[in-house]
Amino acid sequence: MEPSNLNKEQDQNSWALNAWTLLSKLRDQSPLIQCITNFVSMDLMANTLLSAGASPAMIHSIEEIQDFTPLIHALCINVGTLSPAWLPAMREAALVANKAGKPWILDPVAAGASCFRLKACLELVGLKPSVIRGNGSEIIALSKASLGATKGVDSSHESMDAMEAAKSLAQSSGAIVAVSGAVDIITDGHRVVGAHNGVSMLQKVTATGCAVTALIAAFVAVDPLHALEATASALSIFGIAGEMGMDMAKGPASLRMHLIDSLYNLDQASVSSRLKVSSL
Amino acid sequence: MEPSNLNKEQDQNSWALNAWTLLSKLRDQSPLIQCITNFVSMDLMANTLLSAGASPAMIHSIEEIQDFTPLIHALCINVGTLSPAWLPAMREAALVANKAGKPWILDPVAAGASCFRLKACLELVGLKPSVIRGNGSEIIALSKASLGATKGVDSSHESMDAMEAAKSLAQSSGAIVAVSGAVDIITDGHRVVGAHNGVSMLQKVTATGCAVTALIAAFVAVDPLHALEATASALSIFGIAGEMGMDMAKGPASLRMHLIDSLYNLDQASVSSRLKVSSL
Amino acid sequence: MEPSNLNKEQDQNSWALNAWTLLSKLRDQSPLIQCITNFVSMDLMANTLLSAGASPAMIHSIEEIQDFTPLIHALCINVGTLSPAWLPAMREAALVANKAGKPWILDPVAAGASCFRLKACLELVGLKPSVIRGNGSEIIALSKASLGATKGVDSSHESMDAMEAAKSLAQSSGAIVAVSGAVDIITDGHRVVGAHNGVSMLQKVTATGCAVTALIAAFVAVDPLHALEATASALSIFGIAGEMGMDMAKGPASLRMHLIDSLYNLDQASVSSRLKVSSL
Repeated sequence: MEPSNLNKEQDQNSWALNAWTLLSKLRDQSPLIQCITNFVSMDLMANTLLSAGASPAMIHSIEEIQDFTPLIHALCINVGTLSPAWLPAMREAALVANKAGKPWILDPVAAGASCFRLKACLELVGLKPSVIRGNGSEIIALSKASLGATKGVDSSHESMDAMEAAKSLAQSSGAIVAVSGAVDIITDGHRVVGAHNGVSMLQKVTATGCAVTALIAAFVAVDPLHALEATASALSIFGIAGEMGMDMAKGPASLRMHLIDSLYNLDQASVSSRLKVSSL
Repeated sequence: MEPSNLNKEQDQNSWALNAWTLLSKLRDQSPLIQCITNFVSMDLMANTLLSAGASPAMIHSIEEIQDFTPLIHALCINVGTLSPAWLPAMREAALVANKAGKPWILDPVAAGASCFRLKACLELVGLKPSVIRGNGSEIIALSKASLGATKGVDSSHESMDAMEAAKSLAQSSGAIVAVSGAVDIITDGHRVVGAHNGVSMLQKVTATGCAVTALIAAFVAVDPLHALEATASALSIFGIAGEMGMDMAKGPASLRMHLIDSLYNLDQASVSSRLKVSSL
Repeated sequence: MEPSNLNKEQDQNSWALNAWTLLSKLRDQSPLIQCITNFVSMDLMANTLLSAGASPAMIHSIEEIQDFTPLIHALCINVGTLSPAWLPAMREAALVANKAGKPWILDPVAAGASCFRLKACLELVGLKPSVIRGNGSEIIALSKASLGATKGVDSSHESMDAMEAAKSLAQSSGAIVAVSGAVDIITDGHRVVGAHNGVSMLQKVTATGCAVTALIAAFVAVDPLHALEATASALSIFGIAGEMGMDMAKGPASLRMHLIDSLYNLDQASVSSRLKVSSL
C-alpha cells in the first residue's frame, strides 16, 4: 500500500471512529432537540431523532420560547411551510439559543421560492446558526442573496456551483454549511469535506433532508465545539442507515421504514466498514 | 368474441395505453405540484407525488403565491383542516393559477361538516377548478348547495345519488367531477366513466383520498386539455397501485407502504392487465 | 390453584371479555371522534382510529365547533404543538361536548414545558374532561399545579410519584386519570388499576401516546358510563397490538407499521390470552 493510500485509510478510520463515538454519546445523553419545523416533516423528523437516541420537542409557540428553549441542547429551525406567524418564534428561539450558548441549525427549505422566503432565510442566517444545511439550489440562492445584500448580485454568480456557494456562505455567515447531493459537501469556508454515504432513492422520500438537518442538530448538541465534524458525522450516519435500508427496500415507502429501523440498530462494525468521508 | 365485447376490449386497451402514457410523461417531466392541503395529508400526499414522479411543493403562505404559483404546473387545494387564516391564500392561489393558465384541483373534504366549510367550498368551486374530487357525501353536499345557492334546496335533492350529484355539479361548475367509491365516477356533466380499480381497505388509511386528488393534479398537469381522461387515469393508476399493494399487505399500515412502493415501481404490463375503465 | 389465584384469573378473564366487547362495539358502531391535536400526531392518530374501527375527524377551527361537535361521539384534545390561536377552539369544543353530553379526553402533552402550556392545560382540566392521559411527568406537573392553584405548591410535592399524582388529579378534577409507563395506571381517585400490556420500544415511535389517547376517546365513546374500564381497555388493546407488532418488528418504524396492522387484525383469542390488568 502506498503511503498516501495508507493516510487515506487512517483518515477514514478516524472519521468512522469519531462518528461512532458521537452516535454513542447521543444514545447515552439523549439530548433534547427543539424543532421549529414544517408540517410535512414533523413525523419523520421526530422519528429520526428518536431512533438515533435523541429527544425531540416540536414546540413552536413564541409564548414558550423563554421558558423552554434554555432547557434544550440544540435547536433546529426549518422554514418548509413558512408563514409570517411562525417567523417571530423562529427569531426568538434563535436568539434565546444563542444567549444560552446552545447550537442552532438552519434548514432554508426552498430558499429561492419567493422573496418572502428568501428574506426570511437571510434574516435567520444573520442570527448566527452553527450550521446551515440545504440542497444545492437552496445554498446557491442563499449564498447569492447574501452577497447581493452587500455587493449586488452580478451575472458571474449565475454560474456559481454548490461548493463555491457553500464556501462563500460559510465565510459570510460564520456557519458550517452543508450541501446535500450525490456527495454531501461540508465546509467552514476554508476546509471542505465530502460525505459519500447515501442512496439516491432518498430523494423520493419527503422530508429526508429535513430529518437529516435535525440529526445534525443532535450530533452538534453532543459535540458543539466541533460542528464541522459533527455535521459530517450526522450526514454519514444518516447515509449509512439509508444504504442499509436500501438493501431491504422495494421502493420509497419501505426505504423510509428500513432507514429508521437501520438508524436505530446501527452498530460500530457497519459504521466502520461503510463510512466514507474525504477531503475535497 | 362478439363485436360489442371486442369494442369494450379495444376501449379498455386504449384507456390503459393512455394512462400508461400519462404516467410515463409524468415521470419524464416531473411537474411541480403546489399543494395547499390539510395537515393530516401532507406526508402521504408528498410521498404519493414523489413516487409517481412529480415534484410536490407544500407552500401555503399568501406572501408566496405571486412569486411561486406562476412557476408550478398544477395546484391542489384541499380544505381538510381548514381555518379562516388559510382561505385567502387558497383563493389567491386559485386566481393566480387561472391567470397563468395552470390547472387547479379541489378536494372539498367534509364539505357538509359545517356552514363555514360548505361556504368556503362553494366559493372555491366558483373559482373554476379544473377538477373536483370527493367522496359521495361530499359531492352530494356540494352539489345540493350549488343548486341551493341559485334555486333553493328542495326535498327532492334529499334522495340525490352520487352520480346525479356529480353530473349536476360538473354542469354548474364547469369542472370535471370525480366521486370516489367502490367504483370511482368521473364526469364532465354529460359523459360519465367509471374507474374500477382499487381496494376497500384504502378507506382504512387516512388521507388516501387527499393523495389521489394530488395525483390527479399531477396527471392533469401533463395533459391539461384532457382533464377527464387524466382524472380517470390518475384514479386508475392509484387504484392499481392499491391492488398490487394489497397483494403484499397484512393490514392498513403495510398497505400504505406497499401502495407507495407499487406506485413507484408500476410498469406497463401491470397497467395493461389490470386497468378497468368503463362508460357508465 | 389457590382461591386468590382463581379470583385473579376470573378477574383477568372478565377484563379481557370487557375489552373485547368494547372493541367489537367500536368496530360495529364506528364512532365519530373529533381530534383537536398536534401536527406531529395527526397521521398516526387518524390511522390508529381507523384501524380500530372508529371514524376520525381532524377539525379544529372554532368556526366549525357549533355545527360539527354536537354530531360527534367523543372529542380528543391534545396540546402537543399548542399555540394561542388554537386554544379558543379547544375551549369551545370542550364546552359544546359537555353540553351535548359527549365525553371528551385531554392529553396534556409536555404540560410542564412552559407557564403558557401549564396554564392552558389547567384551564382545560377545569372544563371537565372525562379522562386525562399523560406520562408520569405530565401528570405530576399537572397534579402539582392543580394543588398549587388552590393550596400553593410546597416542597412535599417535589417527591410526588405518578400514582399519588394521578389519584390527586383525579380527585380534584373529577376525571379518570391514566398515566402511561412500564405499567399504565388508571384511577378515578380511589380505585387504581394497572394495565400491563405494551412494549418499551413504543417510546421510540413518536405520537404513540397521542394515538392511545385518541383510542381511549373511541372506547369511552362506546361505553361512556364506564370511563375507567373503557380507558383501561383501550390502553390494554393498544398495548397488545404493540406486543404483537413487536413480534414482527425490526425497529421503531416497522413496529409502528405492525402495531397498526395488529390493531386492525386483533381477534378475541389474542385479547383473551394476552390482556393483563390488575388492581393496584
